[in-house]
Amino acid sequence: MKVICLLLLLPLFSFAQPSVKASREWIKKDGANILTELKELISIPNHASDLPNIQRNAEKIKKLFGDRGFEMQLLQEPGAPPIVYGEHKVKGATRTLCFYAHYDGQPVDPSLWKLDAFNAELYDQAMYKGGKAIPMPKAGEPINEEWRLYGRSASDDKAPIVAMMAAIDALKASKIGLTSNIKLFFDGEEESSSPHIETYMTKYGDLFKDISVWLLCDGAVYQTGDPSFKFGGRGITGVQLTVYGPSRPLHSGHYGNWAPVPGQMLARLLTSMKAEDGTVLIDGYYDSVEPISDFEKRQLANAPNIDEQMKEELGLGFTEGNGQSLNERLLLPSLTIRGMASGSVGDKARNVIPTIAIAELGMRLVKGNDPEKMMDLVEAHIRKEGWHIVYDEPDHETRMKYPKIVKVVRDKDGFPAIKVNMDQPEIMSVINGVKSFTGDKAVFLPSSGGSNRVNNAIYDVLKTPAISVNMVNHDNNQHAENENVRIGNLWYGIDLMSVLMTLPNDISKK
Amino acid sequence: MKVICLLLLLPLFSFAQPSVKASREWIKKDGANILTELKELISIPNHASDLPNIQRNAEKIKKLFGDRGFEMQLLQEPGAPPIVYGEHKVKGATRTLCFYAHYDGQPVDPSLWKLDAFNAELYDQAMYKGGKAIPMPKAGEPINEEWRLYGRSASDDKAPIVAMMAAIDALKASKIGLTSNIKLFFDGEEESSSPHIETYMTKYGDLFKDISVWLLCDGAVYQTGDPSFKFGGRGITGVQLTVYGPSRPLHSGHYGNWAPVPGQMLARLLTSMKAEDGTVLIDGYYDSVEPISDFEKRQLANAPNIDEQMKEELGLGFTEGNGQSLNERLLLPSLTIRGMASGSVGDKARNVIPTIAIAELGMRLVKGNDPEKMMDLVEAHIRKEGWHIVYDEPDHETRMKYPKIVKVVRDKDGFPAIKVNMDQPEIMSVINGVKSFTGDKAVFLPSSGGSNRVNNAIYDVLKTPAISVNMVNHDNNQHAENENVRIGNLWYGIDLMSVLMTLPNDISKK
Repeated sequence: MKVICLLLLLPLFSFAQPSVKASREWIKKDGANILTELKELISIPNHASDLPNIQRNAEKIKKLFGDRGFEMQLLQEPGAPPIVYGEHKVKGATRTLCFYAHYDGQPVDPSLWKLDAFNAELYDQAMYKGGKAIPMPKAGEPINEEWRLYGRSASDDKAPIVAMMAAIDALKASKIGLTSNIKLFFDGEEESSSPHIETYMTKYGDLFKDISVWLLCDGAVYQTGDPSFKFGGRGITGVQLTVYGPSRPLHSGHYGNWAPVPGQMLARLLTSMKAEDGTVLIDGYYDSVEPISDFEKRQLANAPNIDEQMKEELGLGFTEGNGQSLNERLLLPSLTIRGMASGSVGDKARNVIPTIAIAELGMRLVKGNDPEKMMDLVEAHIRKEGWHIVYDEPDHETRMKYPKIVKVVRDKDGFPAIKVNMDQPEIMSVINGVKSFTGDKAVFLPSSGGSNRVNNAIYDVLKTPAISVNMVNHDNNQHAENENVRIGNLWYGIDLMSVLMTLPNDISKK
Repeated sequence: MKVICLLLLLPLFSFAQPSVKASREWIKKDGANILTELKELISIPNHASDLPNIQRNAEKIKKLFGDRGFEMQLLQEPGAPPIVYGEHKVKGATRTLCFYAHYDGQPVDPSLWKLDAFNAELYDQAMYKGGKAIPMPKAGEPINEEWRLYGRSASDDKAPIVAMMAAIDALKASKIGLTSNIKLFFDGEEESSSPHIETYMTKYGDLFKDISVWLLCDGAVYQTGDPSFKFGGRGITGVQLTVYGPSRPLHSGHYGNWAPVPGQMLARLLTSMKAEDGTVLIDGYYDSVEPISDFEKRQLANAPNIDEQMKEELGLGFTEGNGQSLNERLLLPSLTIRGMASGSVGDKARNVIPTIAIAELGMRLVKGNDPEKMMDLVEAHIRKEGWHIVYDEPDHETRMKYPKIVKVVRDKDGFPAIKVNMDQPEIMSVINGVKSFTGDKAVFLPSSGGSNRVNNAIYDVLKTPAISVNMVNHDNNQHAENENVRIGNLWYGIDLMSVLMTLPNDISKK
């Protein structure tokens, strides 16, 4: 098990920097309280569709930063989660950094969680390593960096928000002044693909036009535990497929062997889409992929190969891609069955032929892939396999006319991939500042495997560069059940935020 | 739509028989109360694993028949649902008929039901025909035969139990005496494959040794609405397959295209098992099938072909089997995906690579198929496809060693198919009695598509013949959500029970 790297993370860094020293002193003094603040923030449910609770999250965050001297406001579009916006002007500052995070979270399926997702619990290590629940520490009690706080958005993205607050507190306690103008931008619907982000950025454009660089504090550090910074993200889209069997559930005895079985039909369709080695078999799926640049290739070559570590960590006897590395595979469009259902399984399984089978297909896109065109390719493949596509429930006539019917629901919130040029002064000033803290350990990746519509909006609407500045542990179960943050990573996040809030002003002029 | 046949069912029969006349008069007088009794019986949840409620069902049924003059007792094995046993001796009777039904029901998945499964509701016609909920009728109000009562076990099998009670009441009200000794046997775990049935039959064998014929009042009439009687049932077994992806759920962006997707792997495995035309591709799957006899072939030839009707009714543009009829297909072993799940779909879908994918495979067996050997064939096929089979959760070492791992859970409650010889006096006496009521409309089938362990136990343990005596509508959603009974079929059931309880004694001597 090479996860041991994670344990070595922090001691390699330079704690000599005053901002990091301040962060560490503050963590030692106030650590228990920082965890409590994160637990309290997690306690407010935060799916974007739950507007009353979303509003409670926003008001709470507004107050937390308002209490710390930031000028806060909620930017509010009707029917949409508000943007929690804040700013803090610094006399003589030559740049404006905007710290981005989102306060909404993925939906919660309580049946899959080992705890109440909104009543965060501390564990003495990761559950998958055998961790057990422990009480929250009292003020002054020692806190182990391997502890984990479990709860929805513990990592994604409430930890970064709390890290920013703690960094502000730490710097204030050590009387270290901020060196850049700081703006805050907290999104309330990132996990629902931020459908209003362009509207907000356009309508409130004046608030954002002076921003030099956006720092997207979403996402996890490199799987070795090394700091990571990313300069783009994959695009995203998807389709939901529903395959139809009998119009009502049938007794599997009285009709089994005669009535078509929707799960079987769906299995056949899905199998036609992807080879056993992971190659997508949909015609043209890879045709629009733009080759990566030599510069990007060099960055990738510098990143530690983590395949064996990750295979070990995830218990994988094989991976897709015929031996291509994870980092290489993230430069290709993906096709993933993220959900599949027909009838019931386990205790609820019944002796029926179900009426439908559903698959949720997720697609991650790389530079060159157009979301609409990629969905068109999927549909063309389905037709080639002899299926009749419908976009609403099929009526009786349609059912009788076509032997194989699939309903396709196309993702309306998709967006393409984005990549930012690293080699520009605003970006380099941040990179150099960060390097003074991380040394050579930092991994710079051309693109995240993940997707962030905000990144696209910043690029398209505001024409401003953005960097993904990661802090949370990679094994945080983000988007899934039992999401968690490793406490050592929360502390690292506070260090990192402190460093970024006190970047030397002269570097930007290099 | 040929379901119109259903509406024509009852008027074709002979109401001149005193027992049927008594039944009809009683229905007219007491119909509203009969429906209320069924609704009350449905109100007690009845999954076999829910022993406290199972006991409540049993006590209630014991009392209902006890109040009607039957000597009732609960046969009770520790930890198992009791058999509700009853008997009523008739002076001079030359045969003993045992009426069988089960009072337990399939599990309920409330998210799929349109109503509370245990708070039965009356509809003015079938939901799938646009039926709406209506109030229960008051005493004396007219009752339409197309109405349906929705609730778990409305058909399967609480309707037959209520029909027996009503028949006893009807005959009593018209002062018509029973002509056979009547025994009652109500099973409490049929939907869980009656695991204790052999134990009960062996331990309490003395109670059953004088039975001439068992009448299994489970199952639905022929799809045309015509009366049906069956002389056997398919066997049943199955396996649960669990396919393994990463050991924890992964972000579909950060790992999509590299980590194996369990849904995709499962789809491939399932596709390898069955051709698009429904032919099972597992080596040897059809090898042990015993050919049917010429006598059985003649019975099948006499049964109306219902394929076009059923395709129309079920909205099916194609069926498995390359044009073979439903009745022909039921003479082959089936392989059905009765449940399938990976991750979540719909509102709960998340952008993850799930850790597992599960399929519940049901198999219905015909004469000649051995359950254990059929499961062995499935396993052999899985291995041939390159999978490593485990029977418990795979440990880390196993995960790292084998690229494709599937956990197989074999059904422990399966049993083989059974067929009873129709051409014996005890059986012919019942057939002739029934024909005097139904005329030539009755359909006699060598085997039900369904499975009933009780049938096997009667044959194996008690060496007594049994006939499936069906009453409920075929479109009753038994085993699934929104189970229902058509009121006209409940009334037909009361007629049929009245006829069977007053069979002429001399016929048995023919």
